[in-house]
Amino acid sequence: MGAFDTTGRTLRDDLATSSAQAARQAIRSGQWTSHTSTLAHGHVQGNLVILPQAQADDFLRYCQRNPKPCPLLAVTEPGEPHVPPLGDDIDLRTDVPRYRVWRRGELIEEPTDITALWRDDLVSFVIGCSFSFEQALQEAGLPIRHIERNCNVPMYRTNIPTTPAGPFSGPLVVTMRPMRAAAAIRAIQVTSRFPDVHGAPVHLGDPSLIGITDLARPDYGDAVDVLPDEIPVFWACGVTPQAALAQARPEFCITHAPGAMLITDRLNHELAAF
Amino acid sequence: MGAFDTTGRTLRDDLATSSAQAARQAIRSGQWTSHTSTLAHGHVQGNLVILPQAQADDFLRYCQRNPKPCPLLAVTEPGEPHVPPLGDDIDLRTDVPRYRVWRRGELIEEPTDITALWRDDLVSFVIGCSFSFEQALQEAGLPIRHIERNCNVPMYRTNIPTTPAGPFSGPLVVTMRPMRAAAAIRAIQVTSRFPDVHGAPVHLGDPSLIGITDLARPDYGDAVDVLPDEIPVFWACGVTPQAALAQARPEFCITHAPGAMLITDRLNHELAAF
Repeated sequence: MGAFDTTGRTLRDDLATSSAQAARQAIRSGQWTSHTSTLAHGHVQGNLVILPQAQADDFLRYCQRNPKPCPLLAVTEPGEPHVPPLGDDIDLRTDVPRYRVWRRGELIEEPTDITALWRDDLVSFVIGCSFSFEQALQEAGLPIRHIERNCNVPMYRTNIPTTPAGPFSGPLVVTMRPMRAAAAIRAIQVTSRFPDVHGAPVHLGDPSLIGITDLARPDYGDAVDVLPDEIPVFWACGVTPQAALAQARPEFCITHAPGAMLITDRLNHELAAF
Repeated sequence: MGAFDTTGRTLRDDLATSSAQAARQAIRSGQWTSHTSTLAHGHVQGNLVILPQAQADDFLRYCQRNPKPCPLLAVTEPGEPHVPPLGDDIDLRTDVPRYRVWRRGELIEEPTDITALWRDDLVSFVIGCSFSFEQALQEAGLPIRHIERNCNVPMYRTNIPTTPAGPFSGPLVVTMRPMRAAAAIRAIQVTSRFPDVHGAPVHLGDPSLIGITDLARPDYGDAVDVLPDEIPVFWACGVTPQAALAQARPEFCITHAPGAMLITDRLNHELAAF
């Protein structure tokens, strides 16, 4: 991804070390339309869900009742496309590289700008994402298999129900990172410091205890090896609210496209609870 | 244990809710000569190791190099039987219910008072114990199998070597508490707050990875069931320094008898790191 410039550096290389504002500017201008992993290193990235106010109140209660998969970083007033707490210049209509537009649960289009679709009743939810705690895990010297393998994290639907609110319900979706026991213990300590971005794991060890029948066949993302001396460790995942949206089939909804997140001005380190 | 009084309350019942000072007074007077579990609820209890100064420097370095199994709460000056940081009135010659006296690694006697054995060159080490974090686990609503079963915690010698110092070396000894995954994750969070009393687990899951061949046959303490939906969770254990002493066979040494600990004035809650 990212065009090579004459020095051999890619735009991704440039944006990896850029400010959050510069990364958003590249996105806003249409220069960057791909996934945002590694961009604006150190900055919090968020999942985006935009709903008409008629559904937004239920969705807010859904997030409140399921804070591990749906940790809210910000909720806007109806019609408000700005979120100053996450960045003064953020415009939610243009600052995500690629959106998904849904009508009654059907994917309609994947635009890079939703200005033409904006409405006065749209409420936006920015939800924390595991990129933040993965930075902390890496800084703690812990290996992350899917990053080593340069693939997507494996995600699984579990048999753990979320707490419903209005039309929103569905299974908890989890990510899985295999680790040796000592690393798993350290990873629990590290991610416990980040309750705003899924926090501590929800499960470890036997996958069948949470309804996962085959680790080699994730429901989303890519499979990774679990070595004989490793334990699978499972964290709540921001795909959970997307599964709830797919089930609720609201008349209108906009989300980010997978991996193409909102880059905020907040630092991952700011989210550490202690 | 403990004589019944005319009200049907045992001395243990009385001492469970007594002050640390009152519990020590009962011990000092010879009224209490048994194990100290549940006594003076909420107060830190410590393992005791007393060595001649000739070996004490090596032992201090051994503890410093192995802080998870040997978390030092206090070290005295040679000949000093008092430890004011742990309690103004503590006398280490009388305030442990039962001692063990060792010569060249052989157990010689188990007195309730070591005043007659005291020497000007004896250095005392008080080492944190898991009673402190077990209180925190129970307050967090987490089940502890050996307490439910009213037996001793199972302990195992592992294949993890401690870092030697002088004559002191040997395997890490661990305690094991079986838990369901969610409880194990919470237990890691809770015990991470208590680095002075063994802190977070050192291992969880497959026992063979740390050289334990059969959970049903602990090296010390009592076996407990591990249910099919549970994971064994392993913490560093204060028996580790005793194993190192047994291996080093110093010319003279005094320890507490198993379970008969030093009761201090410090509160377990004080030890919480955050």
